[in-house]
Amino acid sequence: MFAARKKTGTLLVRCPDRPGLIARITGFVADHGGNIIEAEQHTDLQTGEFFQRVLFESDGFDVDEAGARAAFAPLAADLGAVSHLYLNPAPPRVAILASKSTHCTVDLLHLWKTGDLNMVPVAIISNHTTNEEVAGWYDVPFHHLPVEANPRQEHDVRALLRGLDVDVVVLARYMRILSPEFCDEWAGRCINIHHSFLPAFVGADPYRQAYDRGVKMIGATAHYVTADLDQGPIISQDTVAVSHRDTLDDIKRKGRELETDVLADAVAAHTEYRVITAGDRTVVFN
Amino acid sequence: MFAARKKTGTLLVRCPDRPGLIARITGFVADHGGNIIEAEQHTDLQTGEFFQRVLFESDGFDVDEAGARAAFAPLAADLGAVSHLYLNPAPPRVAILASKSTHCTVDLLHLWKTGDLNMVPVAIISNHTTNEEVAGWYDVPFHHLPVEANPRQEHDVRALLRGLDVDVVVLARYMRILSPEFCDEWAGRCINIHHSFLPAFVGADPYRQAYDRGVKMIGATAHYVTADLDQGPIISQDTVAVSHRDTLDDIKRKGRELETDVLADAVAAHTEYRVITAGDRTVVFN
Amino acid sequence: MFAARKKTGTLLVRCPDRPGLIARITGFVADHGGNIIEAEQHTDLQTGEFFQRVLFESDGFDVDEAGARAAFAPLAADLGAVSHLYLNPAPPRVAILASKSTHCTVDLLHLWKTGDLNMVPVAIISNHTTNEEVAGWYDVPFHHLPVEANPRQEHDVRALLRGLDVDVVVLARYMRILSPEFCDEWAGRCINIHHSFLPAFVGADPYRQAYDRGVKMIGATAHYVTADLDQGPIISQDTVAVSHRDTLDDIKRKGRELETDVLADAVAAHTEYRVITAGDRTVVFN
Amino acid sequence: MFAARKKTGTLLVRCPDRPGLIARITGFVADHGGNIIEAEQHTDLQTGEFFQRVLFESDGFDVDEAGARAAFAPLAADLGAVSHLYLNPAPPRVAILASKSTHCTVDLLHLWKTGDLNMVPVAIISNHTTNEEVAGWYDVPFHHLPVEANPRQEHDVRALLRGLDVDVVVLARYMRILSPEFCDEWAGRCINIHHSFLPAFVGADPYRQAYDRGVKMIGATAHYVTADLDQGPIISQDTVAVSHRDTLDDIKRKGRELETDVLADAVAAHTEYRVITAGDRTVVFN
Repeated sequence: MFAARKKTGTLLVRCPDRPGLIARITGFVADHGGNIIEAEQHTDLQTGEFFQRVLFESDGFDVDEAGARAAFAPLAADLGAVSHLYLNPAPPRVAILASKSTHCTVDLLHLWKTGDLNMVPVAIISNHTTNEEVAGWYDVPFHHLPVEANPRQEHDVRALLRGLDVDVVVLARYMRILSPEFCDEWAGRCINIHHSFLPAFVGADPYRQAYDRGVKMIGATAHYVTADLDQGPIISQDTVAVSHRDTLDDIKRKGRELETDVLADAVAAHTEYRVITAGDRTVVFN
Repeated sequence: MFAARKKTGTLLVRCPDRPGLIARITGFVADHGGNIIEAEQHTDLQTGEFFQRVLFESDGFDVDEAGARAAFAPLAADLGAVSHLYLNPAPPRVAILASKSTHCTVDLLHLWKTGDLNMVPVAIISNHTTNEEVAGWYDVPFHHLPVEANPRQEHDVRALLRGLDVDVVVLARYMRILSPEFCDEWAGRCINIHHSFLPAFVGADPYRQAYDRGVKMIGATAHYVTADLDQGPIISQDTVAVSHRDTLDDIKRKGRELETDVLADAVAAHTEYRVITAGDRTVVFN
Repeated sequence: MFAARKKTGTLLVRCPDRPGLIARITGFVADHGGNIIEAEQHTDLQTGEFFQRVLFESDGFDVDEAGARAAFAPLAADLGAVSHLYLNPAPPRVAILASKSTHCTVDLLHLWKTGDLNMVPVAIISNHTTNEEVAGWYDVPFHHLPVEANPRQEHDVRALLRGLDVDVVVLARYMRILSPEFCDEWAGRCINIHHSFLPAFVGADPYRQAYDRGVKMIGATAHYVTADLDQGPIISQDTVAVSHRDTLDDIKRKGRELETDVLADAVAAHTEYRVITAGDRTVVFN
Repeated sequence: MFAARKKTGTLLVRCPDRPGLIARITGFVADHGGNIIEAEQHTDLQTGEFFQRVLFESDGFDVDEAGARAAFAPLAADLGAVSHLYLNPAPPRVAILASKSTHCTVDLLHLWKTGDLNMVPVAIISNHTTNEEVAGWYDVPFHHLPVEANPRQEHDVRALLRGLDVDVVVLARYMRILSPEFCDEWAGRCINIHHSFLPAFVGADPYRQAYDRGVKMIGATAHYVTADLDQGPIISQDTVAVSHRDTLDDIKRKGRELETDVLADAVAAHTEYRVITAGDRTVVFN
């Protein structure tokens, strides 16, 4: 649940586990006048790491965001914690990168318009023009950056993202391999939808691979982008049954439904500050 | 995750919501030397109620169970809380009531034997004899209490349960309607599996009802038993697809698989102290 | 699989079961030069009824649709069969009736535009104006027929449907109860999406009912409309897990995703001539 | 649906597609007095191959199994078909090969005992002794063939299978890699359960691999065994959601539930003559 309409704060903490952590962290929020709506924590028993997310009503909070971060710093230092604190944040500014397919774009924009996604789509960027009409429907600026005859296309995309003050990049079936530089710049802030149940069927044409292998289920995986293709930390996955009756076209059609749902789940989790990454894995709070 | 093999304590709390609750409750655990493994809380925004479960390593806890309860009492009183505290508890003593079907019995006993369920099955009680062999396999005492010519059969069941010092009664497809007295005596400690997606198809022969209605999915529901037939708080539910090809026998067969899984989930949740009931609803922590 | 792009014919047959049916029916198709792509049959062992769907390539078929129906008539008469034969049919003309919600409308129109639904949307009809913009995006005529101050609103809707030569009416979260006359006129050709796992939670505000009952899954049901509210033959159903963490708003949000998927499945099945109704039940071929 | 209790025949056919196939094949059955209960066919549009399964009541069939095969041979030759015809067959004789785990063994034997699986378990063969007790419960002969100090263990297993006149070998979490000779001898008649969503996580310890990769779903795959490890044609798959809260032990526990269900589905499909293999893929009729 994301109480998007209330004034809220979110505190994310990752640190080595030790006794008393929850009391100290939630105590910090309570001491400054925050009323906790949700607090979820996780201890990784293998690594001894502790993760916590606290969502609180911030109407009566006695400091602003900068003040809150400063106030939390000594505790964070004592705990050896990496932390993020958002106080009454504006919805993240999202750029959607797409190619020819429109299904993910339409789904994300419609969820935004109905208030189901905590984001502001500031741009649709594409190497094709098929999403231009969709962008127009939702009054989102469309940028056509074709690849042909432009060896600096990715450079231009990156410049555009910086110019638009983008917080999150969503690859909505963007069929280009990104450079390590791009992946580094957007590490932890760039979400891709891959149309397979990763790590099965990495790379090109996964539905064709799945069809040829004769699987009885297909999947979709949303993950943070890293320089290793399709290897980044997984945020969300789902599967659907297929059978010998399903042609490759049927699989693609079923897959589109899956992709939109899985990508929307991941974007929701990220933009509601519910994800903490730990190495190759993610903690996704409810 | 239930750290069954470690020494642990579990604290369940239900009280009106107010700022600072989590810090105070987890602080209590930390102050007595408990290292929290899991803490999950929930605030019902409609009713303003707060629910929390804390699971902690109790090796270094500085009081015993009675002492811990006494120590928590003032805080509970201050919070207006209903609470339960279990310190290094023995696995709950479970009585399985069954009729002719054996699938749920076999599943529960096998999960117990492989260490997947935190319970001790102290009796299989049945109005039929089909489960006697199964009970024997797992060395669990079997009690045959037929209904025919015994108007006091339920009375005898209740006496037996008391005599065996039973903590939890599991109705594993027990095809008898229980009296309000039985339901009251075992309120919150008696789990039934109903072979439909409640509240659809209350009462007798739900698979037949589902077949006749032409549904495209069937379900199973595990719930606490109350005097209102099939109306108690739901702990666990699941569904599976069916089609026109499925005969009533097919539906029953698919249903058996579903029933065993859903009932096992509910028994796991209850015996790991992960359930708090609130009116007609349950909070089931992970 | 619906080979929408090829020239195909579809033959649907329902008759009392007896030996030799499949050979005779498929033989009819083969004798006229049809190459069968899919043949699926079902025998209801309870009622002794036989159902068959045959999809065939019709490039080499030696008669036109009227001729084919005439040619099949003697066999149908001999078998006591109700049959439907479609030869190279144009996509069904669909009218979408909606109220305030837009999610089902957007989904259906997008699936149509991407070629995933075998239909032509000829009108969006609504008692509200929220879908007008959506209709405009997809260049589908929008008709605003408000209920206020118009006691003959349903009459006007029916006249409009007739005037547009509509084949199928899709109630995409149309929040009006239809008269028995409407239901009779559109019997077997009007599909509704109900936002519950029917027969649970008939009538108004099923998500609220589900929330209050404390279910652990919610569902959606697409069915043919009959004069008995939410009692018509079910075409498609699906469910999704919910928990105590889900507020009523969360349930509604998850439900919207479910509704669009279930309704699209049902519309696909109907417009691909894959459904045969038998009393309160449906046979939905793959 | 498998009408196990009636006298039935099953005809499986695989041949190049051409017009009139269904009429001719079902006509053959009807001409000999078989009343078709189920007929399902599939055309692979990529390869142009046709697959059909016909299940028929054989009470009035006018020839015995040998006679039926002889009678069908000319048609099969004309069609270029590979075919199998079973008339009133005895349930397949199944040998279960297991190692330490007991969950699949218990599940298969219980489903057999309740009449849900069309098989006769003639042996439990294991390199460990943990399944001996289970075998005893169900009165199935147990054979302990340890690997230690026996370089010819697989040879002994093969000899035992031959001696027992086994039809189907089920690898119920048998943790030994089989030789190419074993795989060849049992090609198309040996079913393995692999505890991952193949082709992800081939080889050893797939749950550990899944845990390390941070997937959000785990899977299980039942497939025919071939000399290429975990590469054989897939019969059945399923998945279940996991999260960061699930330890490796939790994943294994959830996985056991999945494995038993998926393996039982595959064994049911195979022993009811519902599977036709085509290269690396399977056609699994309902």
